[in-house]
Amino acid sequence: MSNDNKILVGINGYGVIGKRVADAVRLQPDMELVGVSDVISDFRVGMAIQRDIHVFASVADKREAMEEAGIPVAGLLDDLLDQVDVIVDCTPKGIGAKNLQTYRDRGVKAIVQGGESHEATGHSFVAQANYESTLGLDATRVVSCNTTSTVRTLVALDDAGLLRRARGVLIRRATDPWESDHSGIMNTVVPERQIPSHQGPDAQTVVPGLDVVTIAAKASHTQSHQHFWIVDLAREATREEVLEVFRKTPRIATIRADEGVVALNSTIELMKDLGRPRGDMWEVALWEDILTVNGDQAYYTYQVDNQAIVIPETIDAIRALAGTVTDGAESIARTDKALGVQQSFLKH
Amino acid sequence: MSNDNKILVGINGYGVIGKRVADAVRLQPDMELVGVSDVISDFRVGMAIQRDIHVFASVADKREAMEEAGIPVAGLLDDLLDQVDVIVDCTPKGIGAKNLQTYRDRGVKAIVQGGESHEATGHSFVAQANYESTLGLDATRVVSCNTTSTVRTLVALDDAGLLRRARGVLIRRATDPWESDHSGIMNTVVPERQIPSHQGPDAQTVVPGLDVVTIAAKASHTQSHQHFWIVDLAREATREEVLEVFRKTPRIATIRADEGVVALNSTIELMKDLGRPRGDMWEVALWEDILTVNGDQAYYTYQVDNQAIVIPETIDAIRALAGTVTDGAESIARTDKALGVQQSFLKH
Amino acid sequence: MSNDNKILVGINGYGVIGKRVADAVRLQPDMELVGVSDVISDFRVGMAIQRDIHVFASVADKREAMEEAGIPVAGLLDDLLDQVDVIVDCTPKGIGAKNLQTYRDRGVKAIVQGGESHEATGHSFVAQANYESTLGLDATRVVSCNTTSTVRTLVALDDAGLLRRARGVLIRRATDPWESDHSGIMNTVVPERQIPSHQGPDAQTVVPGLDVVTIAAKASHTQSHQHFWIVDLAREATREEVLEVFRKTPRIATIRADEGVVALNSTIELMKDLGRPRGDMWEVALWEDILTVNGDQAYYTYQVDNQAIVIPETIDAIRALAGTVTDGAESIARTDKALGVQQSFLKH
Amino acid sequence: MSNDNKILVGINGYGVIGKRVADAVRLQPDMELVGVSDVISDFRVGMAIQRDIHVFASVADKREAMEEAGIPVAGLLDDLLDQVDVIVDCTPKGIGAKNLQTYRDRGVKAIVQGGESHEATGHSFVAQANYESTLGLDATRVVSCNTTSTVRTLVALDDAGLLRRARGVLIRRATDPWESDHSGIMNTVVPERQIPSHQGPDAQTVVPGLDVVTIAAKASHTQSHQHFWIVDLAREATREEVLEVFRKTPRIATIRADEGVVALNSTIELMKDLGRPRGDMWEVALWEDILTVNGDQAYYTYQVDNQAIVIPETIDAIRALAGTVTDGAESIARTDKALGVQQSFLKH
Repeated sequence: MSNDNKILVGINGYGVIGKRVADAVRLQPDMELVGVSDVISDFRVGMAIQRDIHVFASVADKREAMEEAGIPVAGLLDDLLDQVDVIVDCTPKGIGAKNLQTYRDRGVKAIVQGGESHEATGHSFVAQANYESTLGLDATRVVSCNTTSTVRTLVALDDAGLLRRARGVLIRRATDPWESDHSGIMNTVVPERQIPSHQGPDAQTVVPGLDVVTIAAKASHTQSHQHFWIVDLAREATREEVLEVFRKTPRIATIRADEGVVALNSTIELMKDLGRPRGDMWEVALWEDILTVNGDQAYYTYQVDNQAIVIPETIDAIRALAGTVTDGAESIARTDKALGVQQSFLKH
Repeated sequence: MSNDNKILVGINGYGVIGKRVADAVRLQPDMELVGVSDVISDFRVGMAIQRDIHVFASVADKREAMEEAGIPVAGLLDDLLDQVDVIVDCTPKGIGAKNLQTYRDRGVKAIVQGGESHEATGHSFVAQANYESTLGLDATRVVSCNTTSTVRTLVALDDAGLLRRARGVLIRRATDPWESDHSGIMNTVVPERQIPSHQGPDAQTVVPGLDVVTIAAKASHTQSHQHFWIVDLAREATREEVLEVFRKTPRIATIRADEGVVALNSTIELMKDLGRPRGDMWEVALWEDILTVNGDQAYYTYQVDNQAIVIPETIDAIRALAGTVTDGAESIARTDKALGVQQSFLKH
Repeated sequence: MSNDNKILVGINGYGVIGKRVADAVRLQPDMELVGVSDVISDFRVGMAIQRDIHVFASVADKREAMEEAGIPVAGLLDDLLDQVDVIVDCTPKGIGAKNLQTYRDRGVKAIVQGGESHEATGHSFVAQANYESTLGLDATRVVSCNTTSTVRTLVALDDAGLLRRARGVLIRRATDPWESDHSGIMNTVVPERQIPSHQGPDAQTVVPGLDVVTIAAKASHTQSHQHFWIVDLAREATREEVLEVFRKTPRIATIRADEGVVALNSTIELMKDLGRPRGDMWEVALWEDILTVNGDQAYYTYQVDNQAIVIPETIDAIRALAGTVTDGAESIARTDKALGVQQSFLKH
Repeated sequence: MSNDNKILVGINGYGVIGKRVADAVRLQPDMELVGVSDVISDFRVGMAIQRDIHVFASVADKREAMEEAGIPVAGLLDDLLDQVDVIVDCTPKGIGAKNLQTYRDRGVKAIVQGGESHEATGHSFVAQANYESTLGLDATRVVSCNTTSTVRTLVALDDAGLLRRARGVLIRRATDPWESDHSGIMNTVVPERQIPSHQGPDAQTVVPGLDVVTIAAKASHTQSHQHFWIVDLAREATREEVLEVFRKTPRIATIRADEGVVALNSTIELMKDLGRPRGDMWEVALWEDILTVNGDQAYYTYQVDNQAIVIPETIDAIRALAGTVTDGAESIARTDKALGVQQSFLKH
């Protein structure tokens, strides 16, 4: 903790997720960003410098290259760990799990990303589902963007007593925009070879017993995922009943095709119109006028900004690990206020 | 009928579907292509001329422009209708329905495409589902590519006593390759605003009472559709049982990701390797090693070549309307032999 | 003029360009945005309301529909024209020219976009080339994004005495992101049928006598144009000499592939990292480490954000028409400071 | 040579190029395909088996895996080399150069692909430019698709005394369709970091002294390259004069946008309409109605099917190395007749 009782936060890995976590931490009145750690020397870390963020070298033997590239290196990852209460690991898949031992050895609480396995931490996190179970732990895993959205929506239905079982088709973006110049798919759809795809079982690491099967594929676009769900309800319900559940759930925001939000690109335009940083959408954007309920089945589709949706979860996970806020709903409310998370993107 | 008892066939509309029907008709020993009719003057109709196909003008006042463009016009649509037993209407959506009265007035049996409504003809056609009910009719509608594949697969399950209800997510190609220079979507997914999308109800025009709901979207690729299905089986079944049903069904061909056919583009490459004309795939290509059965639910995905899948159906519909073959299975066998339809695309 | 001597500005057409002009006007200390006018009722105009922008109806008979959609319509276009010194017309291509007479009749100075012809106003504007000639005029045309970038770069070379003639290949984006769900091209390149493409002659409406030929094509991406130039220099020069010209020119910012800015998408990521509103890039982004000079020929490539590059020009054009600043360089400096235009995107 | 004096040909590497060379060799009356060699076990080599092509294992320790996958392996690469006069190496970039020593040791004449360096063989081949210089050599390199098209067109102008110097912008496809599910770029343009890009200097390995500079970039499509040229002519010429040069040159086929061939995708559709195997286009497709001549400068654009354009060159190179035909023009004529290469794709 800092003198003014702020949670001291470090970030290891200043990539697509890391830089967004950095910005979000700086917006929280109860947190302080001590610095970020990375191994790169290019424009991306240059941007951190321009934002007055302290940059550390994650690996000792990269420090020289970074300094030669003109980056004022504030120290090594170890130095950063010395100064923080919580470290958010945003390194590439597989590295986070390896780093955990270091964090534990240093007595620093740690968050890893959804690319790591549940076993790495033994706890997987979605704020609305299991914030409280995180209190007192050393580490947690913020699950992936797809799993986060799945848990948000299905837990909402479950809490309302409406969920029997859910089957989802997840049409994923192929690659992130920033690496789309060398990694991508073109003019094709690539189905995952396994049904269920990993997201279904992954949701069960957060909510054991959830009856969910996911089928996934990559499509030829770079921006955000689109999920399509077929949900067997626990009982017959009306469309309005189901809609009301989603309307009331934090971090699910409703949109309407008949207001011109007709596709993934419309929502991205809308985020830019809203002045969102980087055009980010932290909410699950659910199409209100496409949602259909027929007897005991509900059908709906929503959009997931894979670069942004886990950011508010990560902020909550920081608080849960630090133990400064014990009530999940309070943390969610604080995070959402600080970021500007909305309950609806409808026109009025 | 011609002197040698061939069915005399005309085609109105020499576009993506029309030119494929033309090629397919010419491959049938029991059919003769009298000519095609269109209104265009560009390279596409030039290709018909190069293939020694007689070209007629669909509209009298386009004849002059066509002749000025150097096309040897064989006559008007009326002249074509005088010489044929069956006309296959492949004009753009909405025009086929209007043309039907002309065909009826001339006493020419007619096939319209899936873009028209069921009401236009009162009969909708998929060879494996309802060939026999077409005998004696004046006209039928070959349903769309998506509906054709849906009916082929679900009727196969139903005939095996395995189908209770089916829920499908249909990821459609955005536009056809030949018009992709001016019509398309980019870097987005566009969900259909209505659930069920029209394909579910459309399948019911062929198989009344089929319990099917479809959810559709367009993705950012041009070549073929990908369907994902969640099927409630009539009883618990094994994976092998369900697979065997598909393996035995005509016009469903199995593929395997573990043989390198991992995505839409792989199958297209495979069609080219097979020497298929235009790289066409008439079969539903179903991923054998992705199909999963869990208790009384089956999950599977397959690919639909939207430019080619209705071609064998159209050939069968010609025979059914002409009444020369009364058994659907026989017509299917003839068509498939003439075209080279396969039961499997597996390596061996 | 307002009481505090601000230029009163209205915008007709709140689309891709209009909304950006609105934001930019509001950032200028010497301007006041009176309102925007449009005919739409969907989320886009809803965003204007959320931003506390007064919305007018461009056409009287759309007012009712707008009000029914819940938009608090502040009046008609006529009412807006009553209150402004300068109207910026950002309506779709072809409409701006028709609107000019209305603006003239009302004695309101007007700016039309590059989609209109030079003849519409008789004056075409790029701040660095001909700001001063705009003083005293009733109307000007801010040329298109491609032409703006062409003029910025070639005038820079010409002013340095280095330009003999220039030949450019302009690889354009296919459509704007916000309309990419229904308008686009896919998996193709579409060459313009005319050489020179219109941009070359268009540059000559700003700088008569410029020896420039452009060849254009659309490629399968939505974000920004890429230009490739082959320039015959007026004399042999060094690479450093040419580079220095660009480095010193306002609104041309240098980037480097060896700093990780390797493609169109990298620059867009960089703009988001910079916190630019909507990720906009007002500058021509020129690759410093790709620029090559060989004797009396220079070769270089740069990127043009087609949604943003004309925004600073439009702001300058407002000042030039209002006559409040008579020196182009001063207006450019003011605009660039208010927006945050950079001279370089290099890391340090 | 076989008993009937056919050139015995082997192919090492049955990928995008290898399989096309295999098909083309089989179409030549004076050649016999002994077999192909590869290391893969998936559907692609399965297709070779289906086409009754003998398959050899390129590497001894892959033989078992291939046989286990059910491929009837005819022997090792060494066995194939024992039986052939000429081996065409179509292995991935870098491997061909390493294989050359093996081929030389075995006394087998060899062709490597354009991915290898000129130094690997000391001779680089484009039939129209230097067929005769290949006679008597042990090995040659068929240059890349981009370089082949560059040489075909510029040599045509040079032979007509019209070429002074040429500057080209080469917009390349990002990846081949068959690997577009895992390798590609999305919604971007990626410029090459070096000007001149390698194609210009590469053309000079075929035609020393050619004054050519190329600037290259990858765009977001998978099918074929588009080149844009600015050519300083040796003297003032008319459009018709330049066009006539291209019209008369083998393997350059003219197309017209005003006949509906308006973009890369149109030409691909046209190839399918022509019944071309795999939709291949062996010719440079040059837009006749876009070509412009202004004084002593010519501007034109053409399309290059990167998967197919080097196939006829490879066939000629086989003959040149075998020494059975000493006149380049005769070999070109034979190859083109056997494949069906056209001089024009115009409608009439």
